[in-house]
Amino acid sequence: MAVEIKELTSRSDNYAQWYNDLVLKADLAENSAVRGCMVIKPYGYAIWEKIQRQLDDMFKETGHVNAYFPLFIPKSFLSREANHVEGFAKECAVVTHYRLKNDPSGKGVVVDPEARLEEELIVRPTSETIIWSTYKNWIQSYRDLPILCNQWANVVRWEMRTRLFLRTAEFLWQEGHTAHATRDEAEEETRRMLNVYADFVENYMAVPVLKGVKTASERFAGAVDTYCIEALMQDGKALQAGTSHFLGQNFAKAFDVQFLDKEGKRDYVWATSWGVSTRLMGALIMAHSDDNGLVLPPNLAPFHIVIIPIYKNDEQLALINVRIESIVDELKSLGVSVKYDNSQNKKPGWKFAEYELKGVPVRLAMGGRDMENDTIEIARRDTLTKETVSIDGIGARIKILLADIQKNIYQKALNFRASKTITVETYDEFKQKIEDGGFIFAHWDGTPETEALIKEETKATIRCIPLDSDTTPGRCMVTGKPSVQRVVFARSY
Amino acid sequence: MAVEIKELTSRSDNYAQWYNDLVLKADLAENSAVRGCMVIKPYGYAIWEKIQRQLDDMFKETGHVNAYFPLFIPKSFLSREANHVEGFAKECAVVTHYRLKNDPSGKGVVVDPEARLEEELIVRPTSETIIWSTYKNWIQSYRDLPILCNQWANVVRWEMRTRLFLRTAEFLWQEGHTAHATRDEAEEETRRMLNVYADFVENYMAVPVLKGVKTASERFAGAVDTYCIEALMQDGKALQAGTSHFLGQNFAKAFDVQFLDKEGKRDYVWATSWGVSTRLMGALIMAHSDDNGLVLPPNLAPFHIVIIPIYKNDEQLALINVRIESIVDELKSLGVSVKYDNSQNKKPGWKFAEYELKGVPVRLAMGGRDMENDTIEIARRDTLTKETVSIDGIGARIKILLADIQKNIYQKALNFRASKTITVETYDEFKQKIEDGGFIFAHWDGTPETEALIKEETKATIRCIPLDSDTTPGRCMVTGKPSVQRVVFARSY
Repeated sequence: MAVEIKELTSRSDNYAQWYNDLVLKADLAENSAVRGCMVIKPYGYAIWEKIQRQLDDMFKETGHVNAYFPLFIPKSFLSREANHVEGFAKECAVVTHYRLKNDPSGKGVVVDPEARLEEELIVRPTSETIIWSTYKNWIQSYRDLPILCNQWANVVRWEMRTRLFLRTAEFLWQEGHTAHATRDEAEEETRRMLNVYADFVENYMAVPVLKGVKTASERFAGAVDTYCIEALMQDGKALQAGTSHFLGQNFAKAFDVQFLDKEGKRDYVWATSWGVSTRLMGALIMAHSDDNGLVLPPNLAPFHIVIIPIYKNDEQLALINVRIESIVDELKSLGVSVKYDNSQNKKPGWKFAEYELKGVPVRLAMGGRDMENDTIEIARRDTLTKETVSIDGIGARIKILLADIQKNIYQKALNFRASKTITVETYDEFKQKIEDGGFIFAHWDGTPETEALIKEETKATIRCIPLDSDTTPGRCMVTGKPSVQRVVFARSY
Repeated sequence: MAVEIKELTSRSDNYAQWYNDLVLKADLAENSAVRGCMVIKPYGYAIWEKIQRQLDDMFKETGHVNAYFPLFIPKSFLSREANHVEGFAKECAVVTHYRLKNDPSGKGVVVDPEARLEEELIVRPTSETIIWSTYKNWIQSYRDLPILCNQWANVVRWEMRTRLFLRTAEFLWQEGHTAHATRDEAEEETRRMLNVYADFVENYMAVPVLKGVKTASERFAGAVDTYCIEALMQDGKALQAGTSHFLGQNFAKAFDVQFLDKEGKRDYVWATSWGVSTRLMGALIMAHSDDNGLVLPPNLAPFHIVIIPIYKNDEQLALINVRIESIVDELKSLGVSVKYDNSQNKKPGWKFAEYELKGVPVRLAMGGRDMENDTIEIARRDTLTKETVSIDGIGARIKILLADIQKNIYQKALNFRASKTITVETYDEFKQKIEDGGFIFAHWDGTPETEALIKEETKATIRCIPLDSDTTPGRCMVTGKPSVQRVVFARSY
């Protein structure tokens, strides 16, 4: 019986517009006065805080500590690693001056030409260079290793076309940067963090992911190998949700970071880096939400339950308030977060629609008849179903319900992905099927030329060479040359 | 029985050097390759995380929510509020370009002159302007008020002389920005947050503070009133630990933010802003630490207890490990955080000195005789005293001890401040006493001229016009003109 949210475009009408409407109407984020930079609004930020807290706990459980490195990177540092600078130079915000002065014309302020920096500073697009220049002073021998640091920070990449959460000039993220004595240990760390990300995205965001390795052309600038998790959105496009890079000794060599091993031999240090960003918010929104608004998995919802009283007059409201108070206490004691909205300036129907739009997992409503019968109405956001139940034992029931919703949202996304994942044998079939969206498993000859041709002709990219997947060899669908295993194609965000 | 930390300068030899040594040696922070920007190392950052978590809880308890606003501020926004731009223009990092390109000479990269921004962007020194330009779209009527947002962020002020934590070009902070329908409500909020800060600094950092109002010349650029908390360091210098600003309608007018009140009349919105920063780390370090290193109050220590085994051989260590395990479990179950350092590559004496340097509140040590007698040695970091006690009931004992240490550290700082707080009647006495450091309560005629003269002649500033203090009128110590109440002078950081 939801009141229609007229302002929200439907997914089938225009998926991109639906997404943008939803981000705005659900008060998650908005564009700012600064091109490409967003304002993350309180409700959106509350979800991001939940994401942060959970990931931070998982990083600490796996032995990592947080630290903070400078926002600025001297221009010369970026150039040290050839592929790295190639990858980031074209989208750098550059600080050239450190002072303003009054405009001689009397209007406002101008940049003071006398306050020019000797060397320009780049607002970090990622922190490998400033961090490895620091690690050089921290590392002398194998006893100083491993270093397992993470940083929560803002970064800037001057993107020309931006979309809220998905691609913004400034975004928030975490970047782990680890240093190791051996190649094996660094590779193990790279995979460990990929698994942490997969665990988080599947079990908290309720979004199933494919784990894999990027092809050379999709690799992080400066990495030896880039591992990734790829999720599928409801429009059939893939979204890269997190990456974990094995950096080899590239940055250690660029910044001359050597250590003495147990045998007293000098070697360059092995490195990894790994990150997820506010882009995860985009994945969370697009994976589950519907034409009524957000659908949030209970594990990341700012509050699990909203309770709405339905009353004829102040006396009845007063009675309901008393009854609800004990329910709120019971729920809170069970670790369930609750918002009781008995504000009098909004009608129940408006509230129903509003909290549906905001994706609150469960809505409880209590009216006069419920008071008489000692019942309450429970509505699930994920299935939009409702039932009237006894108040007795409501706490235990809600706990079970929340776990069920978490599981159901994941299962629904998993079923959707299964329905949109296919295997093709020929390039003709590929070109036809890619129009339907989804993941396509196909054979590829391993060359960047074939990869580029497919991208050019179909706008599909190789999302990853999947791990834990069928490794039967075959023949490239385009060239017929040998293929080691099928890779995953999709159009993507 | 502490091993001497030879590298740490003593406070009496050179207080400034002692501070810098301590920050470096205790692994709190270090200077980076970027002028004026620091690297906050994991141990320092762990303390900052404790500070953040506690403050964040207190902000939420007082009804605030977190949000995130852009790092960059269009240059023209800064100019909108005349005092504001006057205050910040001289220390702004300015982004002028958004792309690098290969140096035509083939060496590295240069700024691409074709990628010049139409309008320069300022790296936020504080966010009033970008936030009030955003609030304009959020506020139409009194129903949209109050807005109670906080932001955790990095900011940049191009300071010429920097010191780790105390004054750095980039620093981490939180900035609250609230919007209200009435002047009274905004003023109440300003004072509420001052009290939250005082509560935090006194009860968590264990540093007593004076609450007061700044004089006009020390006010935040753009504020009507700046409230502050002032702490006293061991060298007798004051440190401003937090500020809460009543901004009146200044920013609402600068960004034309009006609302319809209950009577349907339009008015400008009333504002506050308030912030504390990583500077608090400097206050925490300087207020309590000694020539052996850091002294951390238990409420903010990354871990409360370190346990060190003293053993002759591997068999004995194995026995001690088993005994300690149950102690660790007991402590953890009581919410006490413990580090058991049984690493074999360092001697107990080295460990004693290291954890003393790092300010761990309590050290437990267990050797062969303790195993025989079922005892353990407890050493307090604050008093450097130790005793051997029965293991029986160790958990409860430690809980009481930690509370006692927290209280004792505060009391010690309070006693120190009392010993360094005086009242003077004449300017001659003032000039003599100010050399000893500390807070001086004296009468002042309320004019900026007298304030400037005193600063010029003595390097002392008015730290605040104290609240909750003696308000007996008198005569200015310099001019003999009437004074409403005594104000607090000090030399300061």
